[in-house]
Amino acid sequence: MLGAQGRAVHQCDRGWAPVFLDREQSISLMSVGFLLEKPDEAVVWRGPKKNALIKQFVSDVAWGELDFLVVDTPPGTSDEHMATVEALRPYQPLGALVVTTPQAVSIGDVRRELTFCRKTGLRVMGIVENMSGFTCPHCAECISVFSRGGGEELARLAGVPFLGSVPLDPELTRSLEEGHDFIQEFPGSPAFAALSSIAQKILDATPMCLP
Amino acid sequence: MLGAQGRAVHQCDRGWAPVFLDREQSISLMSVGFLLEKPDEAVVWRGPKKNALIKQFVSDVAWGELDFLVVDTPPGTSDEHMATVEALRPYQPLGALVVTTPQAVSIGDVRRELTFCRKTGLRVMGIVENMSGFTCPHCAECISVFSRGGGEELARLAGVPFLGSVPLDPELTRSLEEGHDFIQEFPGSPAFAALSSIAQKILDATPMCLP
Repeated sequence: MLGAQGRAVHQCDRGWAPVFLDREQSISLMSVGFLLEKPDEAVVWRGPKKNALIKQFVSDVAWGELDFLVVDTPPGTSDEHMATVEALRPYQPLGALVVTTPQAVSIGDVRRELTFCRKTGLRVMGIVENMSGFTCPHCAECISVFSRGGGEELARLAGVPFLGSVPLDPELTRSLEEGHDFIQEFPGSPAFAALSSIAQKILDATPMCLP
Repeated sequence: MLGAQGRAVHQCDRGWAPVFLDREQSISLMSVGFLLEKPDEAVVWRGPKKNALIKQFVSDVAWGELDFLVVDTPPGTSDEHMATVEALRPYQPLGALVVTTPQAVSIGDVRRELTFCRKTGLRVMGIVENMSGFTCPHCAECISVFSRGGGEELARLAGVPFLGSVPLDPELTRSLEEGHDFIQEFPGSPAFAALSSIAQKILDATPMCLP
C-alpha cells in the first residue's frame, strides 16, 4: 500500500533503522515483512515469538523523535493485542482507534474489542466505520453494500466518540493496489473528505503540540 | 449469521452436545461464543489456551456421524491454524479451502497461507474469490469495487484449482445480518448461483459417498 515492498531493515548503532518512505524521513515503517527473505514466506509463529518481536519493534527500533506512532493490528483480542498494549504502556499511549465495517457480524467483534480496551485500561479514542456505503460511478446512486450506521450506533451504546464513516471507493482501492498517492491524485473523492475529517477530529482531541 | 446467538452448549454422556440448527440435526455448530456468559465478553486468551480449546472442539464434542466438518478460521498462519491442522491430522482432512478478496494486499496474505499449507502438508482444495465485483441495483452496471481477478491469477500461479468468484451482494449481506435463509429467499441472486457452483465443484472433487 505504501510502495515499500522489497525494502529492507538495516542495523544502525542505535538499533534497527526503520524503512523511510521519503527523503525528509517524515514517515518511517517497521514490519515483519521487511525481515522475511521471500515475500511469500509464511510467518508460522506461535504467541511467545510474536510477543517478543512486538516488544523489539517498540524498544529496539531507532524511531527517533515521532509525532505519532501508529500500530496497525489484526482484528481480535489475542496475543498481538496484549503484547502491543504491554509494550506501549510505559509510553502512555493516546488510545485505541477502533475500526469496524457496518455489518452486525463485524460490530460483534468490535464490541469484544471495546471490552478488551476497558479490561486493559486503554482509552478508546473513537470508532470509525469503514466500507460504509458506495456511490455508483455510473448512476451516482448511493448503495449500502454492507448495510450502514452500525458503527455510529455502537459508539453511542459504548459511550465513545464516533469519528466518521469512510465509503467504499474504487479510486482509493486502486491507489492502495498500485502504491499511488491517493491524496495527490484524488483530492475530490468522497473517501478523501471522510478520511481528512477523521484525521482532523483525532488531532483536535490530541493533547500535543505539533511543530 | 446462522441465527444461533444466545444458544448454549450442554454436557451429554459422550461429551459436549453441539448446538443444532434444525430438528433434523442436519447442521450442528460449536463455537467459543456458546461458552461465554455475555456476548460482549472479550476472549483475551494467549496461544496455549486457544490451542487447548481447539483440540477439545475436535475430540470432546459429540459430533456423531458427519458428512463434512467445516472449520472456519481467521485469516493468517498463527496458533489457531497450527492447532487446527494438528488436531485434525489423525482424521486425514480433505484439505483447505482458501478464500481471498481481489485486492493485491489480500492476495499477499493468501500467498503466505498457501506456503503454510505446503509446509504443514495440507492439501489446497482450491481458491475462492469473495467480494468480487458488484452489480449496481439501480443501473445494472457491473463495478469492480476492489479490482478483480486476483484470486484466479493466484490459483494459476500456485497450481491449485480456482473454484469461482462470489460477487458483493447486498441481499446476501442482509440475509446474514438478519439470520434469514438466503437460499430460500433469493434463489435468483448472482451470489447464490456462484456459491452453488463452488459447492458443486467441491462435492465433485470429494472422494466420498453421501447417502
